[in-house]
Amino acid sequence: MPNTFGKVFRITTWGESHGPALGAVVDGCPPNLPLEESDLQKELDRRRPGQSKIVTQRNEKDQVKILSGVYQGRTTGTPISLYISNGDHQPKAYDEMRQKFRPSHADFTYQTKYGHRNPEGGGRSSARETAARVAAAAIARKILASRGIEIRAYITRIHDISMPPLAHLPTLEEVEANPVRCPHPETAQKMEERILEVRKEGDSVGGLVLCRVQGLPVGLGDPVFDRLEADLAKAMLSLPATKGFAVGSGFDGTLLRGSEHNDPFHNQDGKIRTRTNHAGGVLGGISSGEELYFQVGFKPTATIIRSQATVDQDGHETELMGKGRHDPCVVPRAVPIVEAMTALVLLDHWMRHQAQCESFAFSQENE
Amino acid sequence: MPNTFGKVFRITTWGESHGPALGAVVDGCPPNLPLEESDLQKELDRRRPGQSKIVTQRNEKDQVKILSGVYQGRTTGTPISLYISNGDHQPKAYDEMRQKFRPSHADFTYQTKYGHRNPEGGGRSSARETAARVAAAAIARKILASRGIEIRAYITRIHDISMPPLAHLPTLEEVEANPVRCPHPETAQKMEERILEVRKEGDSVGGLVLCRVQGLPVGLGDPVFDRLEADLAKAMLSLPATKGFAVGSGFDGTLLRGSEHNDPFHNQDGKIRTRTNHAGGVLGGISSGEELYFQVGFKPTATIIRSQATVDQDGHETELMGKGRHDPCVVPRAVPIVEAMTALVLLDHWMRHQAQCESFAFSQENE
Amino acid sequence: MPNTFGKVFRITTWGESHGPALGAVVDGCPPNLPLEESDLQKELDRRRPGQSKIVTQRNEKDQVKILSGVYQGRTTGTPISLYISNGDHQPKAYDEMRQKFRPSHADFTYQTKYGHRNPEGGGRSSARETAARVAAAAIARKILASRGIEIRAYITRIHDISMPPLAHLPTLEEVEANPVRCPHPETAQKMEERILEVRKEGDSVGGLVLCRVQGLPVGLGDPVFDRLEADLAKAMLSLPATKGFAVGSGFDGTLLRGSEHNDPFHNQDGKIRTRTNHAGGVLGGISSGEELYFQVGFKPTATIIRSQATVDQDGHETELMGKGRHDPCVVPRAVPIVEAMTALVLLDHWMRHQAQCESFAFSQENE
Amino acid sequence: MPNTFGKVFRITTWGESHGPALGAVVDGCPPNLPLEESDLQKELDRRRPGQSKIVTQRNEKDQVKILSGVYQGRTTGTPISLYISNGDHQPKAYDEMRQKFRPSHADFTYQTKYGHRNPEGGGRSSARETAARVAAAAIARKILASRGIEIRAYITRIHDISMPPLAHLPTLEEVEANPVRCPHPETAQKMEERILEVRKEGDSVGGLVLCRVQGLPVGLGDPVFDRLEADLAKAMLSLPATKGFAVGSGFDGTLLRGSEHNDPFHNQDGKIRTRTNHAGGVLGGISSGEELYFQVGFKPTATIIRSQATVDQDGHETELMGKGRHDPCVVPRAVPIVEAMTALVLLDHWMRHQAQCESFAFSQENE
Repeated sequence: MPNTFGKVFRITTWGESHGPALGAVVDGCPPNLPLEESDLQKELDRRRPGQSKIVTQRNEKDQVKILSGVYQGRTTGTPISLYISNGDHQPKAYDEMRQKFRPSHADFTYQTKYGHRNPEGGGRSSARETAARVAAAAIARKILASRGIEIRAYITRIHDISMPPLAHLPTLEEVEANPVRCPHPETAQKMEERILEVRKEGDSVGGLVLCRVQGLPVGLGDPVFDRLEADLAKAMLSLPATKGFAVGSGFDGTLLRGSEHNDPFHNQDGKIRTRTNHAGGVLGGISSGEELYFQVGFKPTATIIRSQATVDQDGHETELMGKGRHDPCVVPRAVPIVEAMTALVLLDHWMRHQAQCESFAFSQENE
Repeated sequence: MPNTFGKVFRITTWGESHGPALGAVVDGCPPNLPLEESDLQKELDRRRPGQSKIVTQRNEKDQVKILSGVYQGRTTGTPISLYISNGDHQPKAYDEMRQKFRPSHADFTYQTKYGHRNPEGGGRSSARETAARVAAAAIARKILASRGIEIRAYITRIHDISMPPLAHLPTLEEVEANPVRCPHPETAQKMEERILEVRKEGDSVGGLVLCRVQGLPVGLGDPVFDRLEADLAKAMLSLPATKGFAVGSGFDGTLLRGSEHNDPFHNQDGKIRTRTNHAGGVLGGISSGEELYFQVGFKPTATIIRSQATVDQDGHETELMGKGRHDPCVVPRAVPIVEAMTALVLLDHWMRHQAQCESFAFSQENE
Repeated sequence: MPNTFGKVFRITTWGESHGPALGAVVDGCPPNLPLEESDLQKELDRRRPGQSKIVTQRNEKDQVKILSGVYQGRTTGTPISLYISNGDHQPKAYDEMRQKFRPSHADFTYQTKYGHRNPEGGGRSSARETAARVAAAAIARKILASRGIEIRAYITRIHDISMPPLAHLPTLEEVEANPVRCPHPETAQKMEERILEVRKEGDSVGGLVLCRVQGLPVGLGDPVFDRLEADLAKAMLSLPATKGFAVGSGFDGTLLRGSEHNDPFHNQDGKIRTRTNHAGGVLGGISSGEELYFQVGFKPTATIIRSQATVDQDGHETELMGKGRHDPCVVPRAVPIVEAMTALVLLDHWMRHQAQCESFAFSQENE
Repeated sequence: MPNTFGKVFRITTWGESHGPALGAVVDGCPPNLPLEESDLQKELDRRRPGQSKIVTQRNEKDQVKILSGVYQGRTTGTPISLYISNGDHQPKAYDEMRQKFRPSHADFTYQTKYGHRNPEGGGRSSARETAARVAAAAIARKILASRGIEIRAYITRIHDISMPPLAHLPTLEEVEANPVRCPHPETAQKMEERILEVRKEGDSVGGLVLCRVQGLPVGLGDPVFDRLEADLAKAMLSLPATKGFAVGSGFDGTLLRGSEHNDPFHNQDGKIRTRTNHAGGVLGGISSGEELYFQVGFKPTATIIRSQATVDQDGHETELMGKGRHDPCVVPRAVPIVEAMTALVLLDHWMRHQAQCESFAFSQENE
């Protein structure tokens, strides 16, 4: 179960960084959805390494194949198997890492938990694993888009360089206009410079991703345990390198008083809305119809091109000199991944809501 | 499933704030554990309202009864049913709230999602629901304690009043020494004053809870989706009034460089340890053997004793004058609840780890 | 999880035969369903012991209380907690059984698996546990009935006395017309005589229950693992004393040739039907719209009033003289229980079908 | 979830009969298990079509590849992805079946449930899907074998030709000695003749599989819902063409009296055993340490080479002339599949038992 996500719309992922392939099985997909490999490929292409000078130079084509569950261009309701071949291996580059535990990586804990691990490129603990999530989630995105849901993530801070808040929801084009995926061009420029500077020093930086969702109906989320924000928090913290999640006003909101933080209701053209949205689009764990927004904090990449103190598999203290390709800053590539996990949570909750509240549609009126 | 938490050690909770009772069913508990109602009562007593002047005056005895699963003082491995009677109802106090949606409460979303709700005292969306979690989690705590695991949460900030960092893990007595549950007496005093001041103004404040766990083995956590911090994040965001979760260095850590943030390994008396612990006790989603720590942000209580703009169930704009008992600051009472959810996550993962990695115990040596 | 059944409409049961109470939590129930305790009570009354001379004389009132999830006569979509008090204990009657393992009962396996058990009245392994299932399933039955689904089980054989096949679906009244619950009065008379005769000898007999469901839509069932008949088989074999399950033609069908067994399709007034129904209402694991029918085999009750060879908890060989109240034949009381489990499976699958196939309702036409 | 089986040791399968491939993802496998493709291949080879004149002539090599989760010959505890290429397509042979619903096949129900289906070779509803189960279950078998568990299924009846009961557990060689997989050579000969005779007539027959398991510990099974026999019943009824399941004495046992059916306990060299085993190795849903045995009934294959009345997708009545390759009797090939599902249930329950009852191992003695 640790490699399955979702309850009604479910994905199960598999694969190691340097194995022959990686992939996902999507179960519970609605039938009759028009679906082609190109629907998935466009999201994968956004996550793919090797796209610009600020990210890892590993060159993976990340070509996805659909092996089942689609017939003549439409889903059949049976499991959809997605397959992504791994191409660009350089096992040599990782020779030293076989023996030594890389600081702040998962080598030590995987080795201790399982007693055996695939060390090549980080094996299963590599962020490469998220390619399968992105491919699978592209299906969820397509379904949500058919209902007018827009999911847009972007970088709001790299290291200590922040962009000013945006009033409007930026378009995909605005976000993709620069390699940092920050829709504020001047800030993006500074962020890119910082990343290149840090890269030159063999170091790394982290940052913040903001994710905003518009168009959601009121009613998604399943208290008490499966609150919408709880499942989003889990989804985000299941991503490599994440250290924090904050919905709505987040940690800053804890500095306000109730009289400042509460969002008053009003009637806007017959629709119940709130005048402010400190809540972030959820009330009591259920979507409120306001914009859903949350932030995710990513730590600086653990791989740095510097000498670091560590121990080897036998417990001897030693030095590790980082080698191989690496991202000086993973956060820009995290943007489509954050969107992917968001889509999975939202679609699963939408289908769950339908199952409980719409299957029979009893109401006080109809009897 | 929305009211069930955990995969191997599982709790299912039920009950509304002003219904006849609330409770939980614990399934999957190890057999032969010595267990008495008093084991649960002591945790419930910490969460119970009416204990000091800074919390709600609702006076619930919260007496828990064990209805099944225990025979002659020991668990039998069958479901343990816990029952807590609701005593102190004042339905009158909520009359106005039946018709009007309280701002930043769940009234509106519950009404819209389900089409029907129990409005008394917030019904199922009341924080009173967490009493059942605390009672059930007391079982998990007892099991973890038998292995030397210590879980200690406390308040580090109320509104904008913060305590300085503590080097040592405070004892339970240090935490419980004041009604704020802040183990730094001078700061606790200021926090208490702030809460009383805010209460007088009919307003409310939020704050931060820090939770620290010592004694964990290396190996708990189930990547890729069920990382230990992912399940903790979900657990915390499933609590009412939470807006954020941060593990280890958290959001502050995103301001460091990789060379500053990485935790170097060393050999401490034959044990692999890290010199720093920015990671917060998890690496790659698996416990590292270092102290596990994370912060949870609570917004100011939504109930305030002030007039607020809102709408009624028919969408008419109106005013709501908060009445009834309320907590000007829920955070001190959240402390045992945060510990409770932590215990549930840790025990479930411990049992899951055993199931996968210890049931058969293949190893490279033994063949 | 072992005490939870269902995936979307889920029940979790708890309680021992001689504990203070037993009950169930129903999660995922559609909101707005009119529901009163009397809806559940009428099913419980059918299962209740002490109703006639052919069943156990234990006299339990089995009065069910709804503790949560219903407000002003309608479900709220939150967990429904059901509580049934245990009244008529005679712990003395079981004194001998504390020490000695009753043959063909669960005493030995519970003791060995868990290391500790509640022996009074069989504890958790008592068939009394099914009272909670029946109460919970009454909710599912009410929902299914609102869609015209009729579930009717009855006795077709007691020991070696069989009734002839019935062409029509008997009414509830026909089934309940005699204590054996066999809707063929002459056979019922013979069955009753056999049971009384066997009772006089301190012995017991088993038999067959046939369950028939009319009104189902085409489409319930979730291949490949959660075929409708697979989940029904599990549901039935989860009942105490069951030894077999057969759907449609069952084991007899394995004696036919394909040309005899196949059910030809035809068009009946615009509806696709089959001329025969050896399949039993399922094709490929999915309901076909034909009558769903299956048989369940119950072994003779293990409790007999005779001396039997056995061992005690220390492994010493000894004799056990059955005492206490017992059912010489449990099968008549199993009838409402078989219906209950059937209702749980069908409603869960109905809601699951809606979740996957109706939530978004893509179709080849609408695009 | 419908394509996932198991709770701790879990498999998720995917693939259509005539798609590019089919496969499975195994999650939760114990780490450090020596595993090679040949371990899986030997089981697949037993299931593979085209092996003898009594089964379908479709010639699939069914070569399995392991794509993840194994490194240097040992499992790593991460998901194991299994991939089986589909080779021998003859889509032409199925042209007629695209339009017409084959009687007693899943065409009609899949089309109605999902609104769209892959008709080639039966798509997802083809028994070919079980190849993925067999491959995945071979891993479970290897683990169980390491603990001395022997799972042996064989044919006891084809059409109306039965073999006499066997006292001993036949060896794999005895079962595989003839194409019918009946370990009684004279009966096997007659069965084979019957199958060939029926084949010549374009017809088909069914039969019975008996599955026996030796070496199980006392304690596997999780009442009340996840009784061992309940999960076995579900596993068996999830297989195509099955109509019934019976454990131990089964339906015949319902003809006995309690005094005949009860299995008396005795002490055999310090071990608690029963003198008879009508129970079939389970008591109260938990393995008793006696041989576990159950029967599964398979209907005659639905595909026959005869003209049959049916309707087309538009509801018009028509005739279908069966063509293509088919099995006149699937039961011999079902033998390894029954064993496979048995292994999955047993290993999952073993790991679950460890999780609950062995993780902490409290006992009345140790305190």
